[in-house]
Amino acid sequence: IVRREVVRIITPGTALDNLSLTVPASNYLASITGNEAGLGLAVCETSTGDFWVSQFTGTDQLKTLKDELTRLKPAEVLVPAGAAFNPVHLFANQEKPLLTYYDPKAFAYHLAHKTLREHFPPDSLRTFAGSDYAPAVCAAGAILQYLTETQKAPPRQIKELKYVSLQNYMTLDATTFRNLEITRTIRFHDKKGSLLDIIDKTKTSLGSRLLQRWLERPLLDLKVLEERLSAVEALSQDWAKRQAIRSALAEVYDLERLLTRILYGRANPKELLSFRQSLSVLPQLKNILHSFAGSHLLNTLLKSFDTLEDVYALLEKALEENPPYNLKEGGVIKSGYNPTIDQLREVSTNGKEWIARLETEEKEKTGIKSLKVGFNKVFGYYFEVTKANLASVPGYFQRKQTLANGERYITEELKNLENQVLGAEERLLALEEECYHNLLKEIGNSAGRIQNTAEILAHIDALQSLAEVAVQNGYGRPLLLEKEKNHLEFEELRHPVVEKVLKDTLYIPNNLHMPEAVNLYIITGPNMGGKSTYCRSVALAVILGQIGSFVPAKKAVFSLRDRVFARVGASDDLSSGQSTFMVEMNEVANILSHATRHSLVILDEVGRGTSTYDGLSMAWAVSEHLVQKVAAKTLFATHYHELTQLANMEPSVHNLSVAVRERGEEIIFLHQIMPGAADKSYGIQVGRLAGLPDSVIQRAKQILKLLEHDNFNRQILEQE
Amino acid sequence: IVRREVVRIITPGTALDNLSLTVPASNYLASITGNEAGLGLAVCETSTGDFWVSQFTGTDQLKTLKDELTRLKPAEVLVPAGAAFNPVHLFANQEKPLLTYYDPKAFAYHLAHKTLREHFPPDSLRTFAGSDYAPAVCAAGAILQYLTETQKAPPRQIKELKYVSLQNYMTLDATTFRNLEITRTIRFHDKKGSLLDIIDKTKTSLGSRLLQRWLERPLLDLKVLEERLSAVEALSQDWAKRQAIRSALAEVYDLERLLTRILYGRANPKELLSFRQSLSVLPQLKNILHSFAGSHLLNTLLKSFDTLEDVYALLEKALEENPPYNLKEGGVIKSGYNPTIDQLREVSTNGKEWIARLETEEKEKTGIKSLKVGFNKVFGYYFEVTKANLASVPGYFQRKQTLANGERYITEELKNLENQVLGAEERLLALEEECYHNLLKEIGNSAGRIQNTAEILAHIDALQSLAEVAVQNGYGRPLLLEKEKNHLEFEELRHPVVEKVLKDTLYIPNNLHMPEAVNLYIITGPNMGGKSTYCRSVALAVILGQIGSFVPAKKAVFSLRDRVFARVGASDDLSSGQSTFMVEMNEVANILSHATRHSLVILDEVGRGTSTYDGLSMAWAVSEHLVQKVAAKTLFATHYHELTQLANMEPSVHNLSVAVRERGEEIIFLHQIMPGAADKSYGIQVGRLAGLPDSVIQRAKQILKLLEHDNFNRQILEQE
Repeated sequence: IVRREVVRIITPGTALDNLSLTVPASNYLASITGNEAGLGLAVCETSTGDFWVSQFTGTDQLKTLKDELTRLKPAEVLVPAGAAFNPVHLFANQEKPLLTYYDPKAFAYHLAHKTLREHFPPDSLRTFAGSDYAPAVCAAGAILQYLTETQKAPPRQIKELKYVSLQNYMTLDATTFRNLEITRTIRFHDKKGSLLDIIDKTKTSLGSRLLQRWLERPLLDLKVLEERLSAVEALSQDWAKRQAIRSALAEVYDLERLLTRILYGRANPKELLSFRQSLSVLPQLKNILHSFAGSHLLNTLLKSFDTLEDVYALLEKALEENPPYNLKEGGVIKSGYNPTIDQLREVSTNGKEWIARLETEEKEKTGIKSLKVGFNKVFGYYFEVTKANLASVPGYFQRKQTLANGERYITEELKNLENQVLGAEERLLALEEECYHNLLKEIGNSAGRIQNTAEILAHIDALQSLAEVAVQNGYGRPLLLEKEKNHLEFEELRHPVVEKVLKDTLYIPNNLHMPEAVNLYIITGPNMGGKSTYCRSVALAVILGQIGSFVPAKKAVFSLRDRVFARVGASDDLSSGQSTFMVEMNEVANILSHATRHSLVILDEVGRGTSTYDGLSMAWAVSEHLVQKVAAKTLFATHYHELTQLANMEPSVHNLSVAVRERGEEIIFLHQIMPGAADKSYGIQVGRLAGLPDSVIQRAKQILKLLEHDNFNRQILEQE
Repeated sequence: IVRREVVRIITPGTALDNLSLTVPASNYLASITGNEAGLGLAVCETSTGDFWVSQFTGTDQLKTLKDELTRLKPAEVLVPAGAAFNPVHLFANQEKPLLTYYDPKAFAYHLAHKTLREHFPPDSLRTFAGSDYAPAVCAAGAILQYLTETQKAPPRQIKELKYVSLQNYMTLDATTFRNLEITRTIRFHDKKGSLLDIIDKTKTSLGSRLLQRWLERPLLDLKVLEERLSAVEALSQDWAKRQAIRSALAEVYDLERLLTRILYGRANPKELLSFRQSLSVLPQLKNILHSFAGSHLLNTLLKSFDTLEDVYALLEKALEENPPYNLKEGGVIKSGYNPTIDQLREVSTNGKEWIARLETEEKEKTGIKSLKVGFNKVFGYYFEVTKANLASVPGYFQRKQTLANGERYITEELKNLENQVLGAEERLLALEEECYHNLLKEIGNSAGRIQNTAEILAHIDALQSLAEVAVQNGYGRPLLLEKEKNHLEFEELRHPVVEKVLKDTLYIPNNLHMPEAVNLYIITGPNMGGKSTYCRSVALAVILGQIGSFVPAKKAVFSLRDRVFARVGASDDLSSGQSTFMVEMNEVANILSHATRHSLVILDEVGRGTSTYDGLSMAWAVSEHLVQKVAAKTLFATHYHELTQLANMEPSVHNLSVAVRERGEEIIFLHQIMPGAADKSYGIQVGRLAGLPDSVIQRAKQILKLLEHDNFNRQILEQE
């Protein structure tokens, strides 16, 4: 019986082994704590070693933290047991991670700071000196201690602690992030069908994760964005070199996660082979990059690109060309690397020859031509003799087993040879194992360099992905303006996801012209006309531009937006006791209190969840407030035709509508956005298309006529 | 190097190994095919051996099949490659399984029939004689062949092929099944928060799966339902015996899945122990059941309850009390079961003693007191001598390793002993393995009996679960009437899920009185008032009653319903190009064409997705059609106050509304349903609660006043 000890504890945030090396998605462990000054959030991707902290202050601190958690969607969150705030409220309904209530002592400043000092070189912690960063330090210290405790070893893959200030990024609140389906869809909580899915043409998990992080936090810095855009443009212009980069990257496995497994001594030989293969393409990749030295960003990456040739050479010397998955099968260490291994291999091979020779000798001695050596697990090696020859069996043969057709024997000499062979094999395996673990340790010594290279690869991959998407999907480079200009202009703009889904149908692009003097477009027109798609395409284009991507438009000129809001549709949330309308009003209230004149606001059908007049009144009052008090750039798609009158009263309000062509009873949706208010809404026609009985359609038309002539109340009763 | 062959292929529908033995959820493999006569569907739970077929004919065959697939949510679906129908259209967007395009030959009648004949005893196939069942036979044959091909062995866990006729069950279409969140929620596609989650107090995976199947297909047969209700009632009345049953069931593991693993030779020793433990409680469970022989259904179960005592006795004799998880660790077979195993165990134990004795002998011979025997994987057993004693080492010691403090040696005698010990252990393991596999085979011979017992356990468990829920949650036994009576009546009815979620708040129960003369209730009143919850609670109570469960009401008397429809909320489906309103109208058209006077229809906010007048006209016309042409029992929750006038024109239409109390600016939702139409809708008050700025609220009130006096168009412009 083998004695067992707990070697490590696996939790959702620390599951190094179960994380796929082929699925790139991030798996975050977060930690939250707070004092009077604010809230601290530490986030760690334990499988890659990525580690950062943020702080949240002011009256909105809980909401901002909640928004951040929605974007990151951590798998596990540490909170101090008995914390003052209730952590459950921090998560949108669909995003609940495992909450681990951890020892509050680990979050105490003194201990947390000590934990950090012991793990990181002192210089690297200078940012965090002084009590201003106490919440961040406490959250980070708790994660480190938790990892050390669960893994029974300090997390050596963590080499650096970064500080992320959310002030430097565009604000996307939880609702907007979800509604715009930026990294996952609303229906399946899944990447497929999201904006990320469309623009992710990365070749490595490293690049894919970085691209996702970019989308989670679009930028506000014009200079950095221009550098990214220039890099994308350079890469987009050279098809051949870009394909060469992509082919090279396709050979690169998830270096970060492989490294973590190496550091924990848990990488298997096949994974180590993947690691070696990943390194093998680095020199040639660096070589191609020289052609793009004209781009400032790519040149910076090129300069700090360490191709790790020494690590590769070591692996080339030590690791077999095609080792098995399982270390215990042997055949992992290349011959020539360790003399003892080579020697034991020879014994084991020769031993088998010796046994074959013994078989020949015994055949001759006994005269039994059909004598043969066999092997099974129960008896080891044996001689098998058929019934016909039993008489010729000599005395020194010891019988071991009787078969239907004969007998099996052993001899002392056979057993001796067996012991030599089996003994050598067992010792060989043990030695290979030792040698392999030393190899892992040696690679682990270059962990910092490997992580730097992985980060450079991630950037190259994310940038080439944006270039590839731009070329494949016909995106154009946006001209970004300072936010103060308050100007948005798109020509032939498309929705990046919908245009991909509509394979058989022609996608109709649309324009938007929103100079400083225009703040609100009221968009009316029939359902299925494309109002929602239009509004979302504007929001997505702005977000794409602000991560440094080209955008799906022929022309795009726009001022950077500090926030994007999207109130789109809504679903009941019965289980939390909130009705559709309450959810809707909460979202609107949030927009009114946070939008600025540099924001972009998308409103799709506000006011639907209540009675007609109530809803219309609210929609009207909200529109007025947005125009008069906030002056944010707003697109408002609505079924309330009455709202179009706002354009007659406010100079910065204009109407748009979707074009429809009628042909007798048929209606054709042109999906084209036109200036001016819609004159009809075609709801009854849609009902007919959906297959409602003709009698119902005729009756609905009759009623509509009465309503339109404003004498419904009187006539509807008289009529019957 | 070990040679490898493909031993089996794992697909989502055939993943026996990866299926949890603790998570009960079903994992279905389905197969679809069709000819001119209709469509055939075969469904198999490969991990339990459950296997059945259905057929679909008539003009609605594709829709009915789609509804069935939504309920079952198979993990994998086989379709003949190049089939006439496009299988992709068969799945609602969120329910897409893996589609496996399989060799059309496997679906051909001749071959499929042959496959079935070879697998099942001829008698059991009598139902399927003749060409009427060709589609079902073809679908079933294809599954069997696919399983044999992927598992590289015939699926011996499949003992029976059942025929399920959907005519015998209440129809719940895909939309209704999803909207009512019967087995999973809309948001998370997850059991948690669903009706199933609330009523599942089963103790075994067997019972949990059966309960889910009941919910997927409520019954139409009054006699069968009364038998189930009586069994539930009997179980609910004896607390002590019910707890005894529950404790016994708590010891029962997933017998069906364990059996399948046993049949495939893939059950590990710990699993076999679970299997034995499950059997150990059967006699006592059967004993308790005798007290319930008064219930016809429980008595039937009791009579055919095979407690499998012979199988238990075999396992008791052969399997260790606490075997390891991994067979290769040994210590799996009990001593006394196999003489050779006992003998080898002795050699292995004695061998270690011999080595200890040799240590003592050599100490005396050499005079080295600190001499000791050690073992490592590389060198095996050795003698270790400290530096100080090196001079006393005799000549027959062979040096093997030099340490800082001494040397390690072997002797011939030590090596001989080592070979005996290590050899015996290796042979022991091999023999235990053989013995273990024979044991699995022997248990497999009783597979049919074990499956029968598993089915009986499932029924007992599902029934006790319903009884436990009834007692814990205060449900009452419904009085079921024939469908022709068309009478629905509930007193103090609650929503089974919402009442559980509202922990801090008091749940307000409501009544429904819908005799034959009343067909439509129009329900108006403010949002958050509880209209939706009320409508859903009626639908859920009917469904619960029709699976034989008690219902969350003080009094429940209702006629069986042939179908339940729920059009509730709606979400955009941008990616399929359908707007909210189109989805809504499609669902309504489906209801109008399929509802009968014996159906229950729930409409929540029909007409919202278009302009005000269009939507109202449609809602009106649809209501009239339902009342005049269909005469189904209908509950229609709406924000169109204008609809309440319908009650003045149609005698079978009545109004209901939700009660609200106003206290100054405050409003209190009483969640009480009252007769009569609502007079106000409180949308603006909700806006205030949600935190909209006061200026917006005041302005909205102003606009509302204008609207209510019908002079909006004129005054709104004058006013500015």
